[in-house]
Amino acid sequence: MWIQNEIKLSPKSRGYHIITKEILREVPEIKKINTGLAHIFIKHTSAALTINENADPSVRRDFEAHFNRTVPEDTSLYKHTLEGTDDMTSHIKSSLLGSSVTIPVTDGKLNLGTWQGVYLCEHRNNGGSRKLVVTLQGE
Amino acid sequence: MWIQNEIKLSPKSRGYHIITKEILREVPEIKKINTGLAHIFIKHTSAALTINENADPSVRRDFEAHFNRTVPEDTSLYKHTLEGTDDMTSHIKSSLLGSSVTIPVTDGKLNLGTWQGVYLCEHRNNGGSRKLVVTLQGE
Amino acid sequence: MWIQNEIKLSPKSRGYHIITKEILREVPEIKKINTGLAHIFIKHTSAALTINENADPSVRRDFEAHFNRTVPEDTSLYKHTLEGTDDMTSHIKSSLLGSSVTIPVTDGKLNLGTWQGVYLCEHRNNGGSRKLVVTLQGE
Repeated sequence: MWIQNEIKLSPKSRGYHIITKEILREVPEIKKINTGLAHIFIKHTSAALTINENADPSVRRDFEAHFNRTVPEDTSLYKHTLEGTDDMTSHIKSSLLGSSVTIPVTDGKLNLGTWQGVYLCEHRNNGGSRKLVVTLQGE
Repeated sequence: MWIQNEIKLSPKSRGYHIITKEILREVPEIKKINTGLAHIFIKHTSAALTINENADPSVRRDFEAHFNRTVPEDTSLYKHTLEGTDDMTSHIKSSLLGSSVTIPVTDGKLNLGTWQGVYLCEHRNNGGSRKLVVTLQGE
Repeated sequence: MWIQNEIKLSPKSRGYHIITKEILREVPEIKKINTGLAHIFIKHTSAALTINENADPSVRRDFEAHFNRTVPEDTSLYKHTLEGTDDMTSHIKSSLLGSSVTIPVTDGKLNLGTWQGVYLCEHRNNGGSRKLVVTLQGE
């Protein structure tokens, strides 16, 4: 069985956001899959997806601080800054984190660990609404 | 054909460990798949999976040194340190490396390059036994 | 439907290269898939795959500069340097970026965003021809 939906996330502020529920709302068909995989893909190069801790908001704030420190908005370091100081840094952060996550599906649900959630990593100051493609497959 | 097994790794010390054989022992069904994919997922946010060099142990030690240098256990940098100086750093290292790997399956085997192995990246000082979900599919 | 082809890329210079067309040329069967996934895997541990901006060459040059700065070829930092100063650094850069990308397939095409392309990340000074395994599946 294959299910593929293109979805638009609500616009998010710069930073790291848990979007597990926002994704699941768009693919109720997941209930039909006993054993399978969910692939979630972002169609942008300045935002990313990752899986991390789903409880304490300080984790997401520390992510923002860490990536700002290691990929600094110092225009002497980068040439591709036409759209602003957050332009090239967003591209680099996005490849460090990745453009998709793949999660096992078991008994109609994402088979995540207790503390895992899907993050939207919004690296731009004004990234707007981001498009994802969610592909579910299984039996 | 779908095969999905949840497995528990033996506890590993902090650092980088080749676990290719430990995984394969738990999914003997891979022999039945001529063409397919193997997805290996870790159900934790302070340890990760990656693919890298499977021979010289100095590679894994250099990984440990590199990530300790670029994600330092300096509590002035991070707020989420309730569980110790290795708490937030483990979350960041894990998202840099990723929570899953996907590997082609060809003629009943993982189609890895000669020098490739699957690493468990254990970032905690006492991570204990880690749970993986291995999903094989193919025909 | 499963299609799996092992392909050899033409040798590339050190740096970041868009290879979307070079890959698609080798898997014309993608046209037959209405809904599915494409998995692209590199069989090496010193080169990587990522998805990023497909237009301005300065993005790829900034990638090279960024990773050289954050994973410096300083032999005092790494032990695994038998093959040269670009040996261990290539392994680390490769795990930061990843050994595979997975992309949705929709209506016979890779369902990439307007600005997305697949990058070969060649971290060695003389990496030679790199082998990929492309696995397409869908219906």
